[in-house]
Amino acid sequence: MIRVPTLFLDVKRCKKNIEKIASKAKKQGLEFRPHAKTHQSLEVSKWFREVGVNKLTVSSLKMAEYFAEEWDDITVAFPTNILEIQTINKLAKKIQLNLCVENFEVLEYLNKHLEHPLGIFLKIDSGYNRTGIAVDNFKLINTLLLKIRKQKSLEFKGFLAHAGHSYKCRSKEAIEVVHQKSKKQLLLLKKRFKNQYPHLIISLGDTPCCSVSEDFSGIDEIRPGNFVFYDLTQNIIGSNDLNEIAVAMACPIVAKHADRNEIVIYGGGIHFSKDRIDDPEDGIIFGRVVEKKGASWGACVPKMFLKSLSQEHGVVSVPKATINDYNIGDLLWILPVHSCMAADLMKEFHTVDGEVFSMM
Amino acid sequence: MIRVPTLFLDVKRCKKNIEKIASKAKKQGLEFRPHAKTHQSLEVSKWFREVGVNKLTVSSLKMAEYFAEEWDDITVAFPTNILEIQTINKLAKKIQLNLCVENFEVLEYLNKHLEHPLGIFLKIDSGYNRTGIAVDNFKLINTLLLKIRKQKSLEFKGFLAHAGHSYKCRSKEAIEVVHQKSKKQLLLLKKRFKNQYPHLIISLGDTPCCSVSEDFSGIDEIRPGNFVFYDLTQNIIGSNDLNEIAVAMACPIVAKHADRNEIVIYGGGIHFSKDRIDDPEDGIIFGRVVEKKGASWGACVPKMFLKSLSQEHGVVSVPKATINDYNIGDLLWILPVHSCMAADLMKEFHTVDGEVFSMM
Repeated sequence: MIRVPTLFLDVKRCKKNIEKIASKAKKQGLEFRPHAKTHQSLEVSKWFREVGVNKLTVSSLKMAEYFAEEWDDITVAFPTNILEIQTINKLAKKIQLNLCVENFEVLEYLNKHLEHPLGIFLKIDSGYNRTGIAVDNFKLINTLLLKIRKQKSLEFKGFLAHAGHSYKCRSKEAIEVVHQKSKKQLLLLKKRFKNQYPHLIISLGDTPCCSVSEDFSGIDEIRPGNFVFYDLTQNIIGSNDLNEIAVAMACPIVAKHADRNEIVIYGGGIHFSKDRIDDPEDGIIFGRVVEKKGASWGACVPKMFLKSLSQEHGVVSVPKATINDYNIGDLLWILPVHSCMAADLMKEFHTVDGEVFSMM
Repeated sequence: MIRVPTLFLDVKRCKKNIEKIASKAKKQGLEFRPHAKTHQSLEVSKWFREVGVNKLTVSSLKMAEYFAEEWDDITVAFPTNILEIQTINKLAKKIQLNLCVENFEVLEYLNKHLEHPLGIFLKIDSGYNRTGIAVDNFKLINTLLLKIRKQKSLEFKGFLAHAGHSYKCRSKEAIEVVHQKSKKQLLLLKKRFKNQYPHLIISLGDTPCCSVSEDFSGIDEIRPGNFVFYDLTQNIIGSNDLNEIAVAMACPIVAKHADRNEIVIYGGGIHFSKDRIDDPEDGIIFGRVVEKKGASWGACVPKMFLKSLSQEHGVVSVPKATINDYNIGDLLWILPVHSCMAADLMKEFHTVDGEVFSMM
């Protein structure tokens, strides 16, 4: 019985999401190195094995350590944190570890302290402007490549980009534009360095581009992560339909305020995170209520959304006509705005059949 | 050695914050029932014992269970979640448990399922409009009081309010206005029910009002929580000076982008939470960099703040003139926007002396 906020996973939807991207990768001849930061679960990662995946992406060395229990080829898609050299050495001894590098200092540091060989991706900024080397900064790229060549324990793997600016899109067409531009930049880089490095990999990452585009010609590897569950943010971007969202939070109703058409749930920022979307119709929202349906959940209930979150409280806006359909002690099922953050907070997934999947 | 994002606690500042509110409570003849949701730590709660505190407030039954190991008088300042009746019964057997009630259904449910006596506070809405009974809804208040009187195991404790609308204030004067209005409403309620319930308690809660006001005449109990650490949100509201903030996150620098005056740290939404403030000068920010200083930290570095957060990345805006003072592998010390959420995510506090305080 559910008594407190509980994160549910619809395994069927999740496996369908995995199958969708795996099929696309296969069809396009792409290596599929899914990002595990959304599910952070060895159990969920097994479903990727079932579709032929044998390598992962993670966002921290801690996450790499966790997955290295069962996976032997892991890329850490985060700028290398030299302070964690002990963990890097431990992992590099055990598995094929690939790190992302974007500056000379890190290569110098690895040169002095690395004890086992590993792969290096140069992180390229294809327009997101968060991390990475500007795609046309050939001077820096050449300096770094020269430094890598000089060190026996470093193997240059290729160029890795995350077109995170696709998160600003609000349509499939806009996502396609970001993808094509990002792809074009990376392919120019590939062309330039292909002779020198015939095996170099061009690795692209984000869920919107990988969900929407059907054109990955010239790309070698994709690394999306969020698609495993999707969420309201990806839906508003244009990546997925609402019925592809594979996680929902069940939250007890603890108070009702019919005078202002609000229900208060046990379920707050420590469950959903404070991530928000600015919905064109409903304004700033933190989640959407769905109908409970059989072994899963159904459509979104119109005009029923999380309008604010405190630490443990959530305030749900409810249409006047239906507020009396809900009672204290009932559960509301709510799609999260950002499934990665909600999962990270909840630390486990439940299924309606009573199974529990553990996380990192 | 710090290798990953780490939440530090300045014990001296924290104890000073505790002492400040404890002294005020003593001076004003108030019961002090501090909220433990910010620190969530039995070890930190001991420092309240040292200033004579013997009762706590919490925001969940789970938190009540944790603190019931060492505290025997706990109020759960959250609408009663009837689905957790087993936990309620377990706690009511062990300690003086007080619950908040604002609707008839909960009293009916407790009437049927409660196995041990407990105290009831009626939750009053003094203007925040999140939870609670409207302060002038005497019909509902009387109905609930009648229901409580009929049940031997329920003891009416008093009226409890949380003037959370003080969080919209941006000056001490504005906070004082919210406090006086809220206080006035609660005192009218006290006057009305005092004859019938001579021992009724008026309990007020929020950190801004409890930090700023010196006038609690007629109030019986205060329950602030965040003041134990304070944070940038409380500072912008007007509750505290920046040098009273008792927690800071140490984060490794992993990338630098001098061309756009940005440093990238290992430290993201899973460490700080995605809580934000809209600063009049710097816009939306997620944290502020402070100078490292001796066994603690010093003043905020002007114009150096967290401008965006991803799951594990933080992007810090840095003045052009000083960006070359920072190197890959250095630590940045950052004041959180919301200390409750950051602490909930980090699960432990470190001191510069190497002590570690565990949390729930």
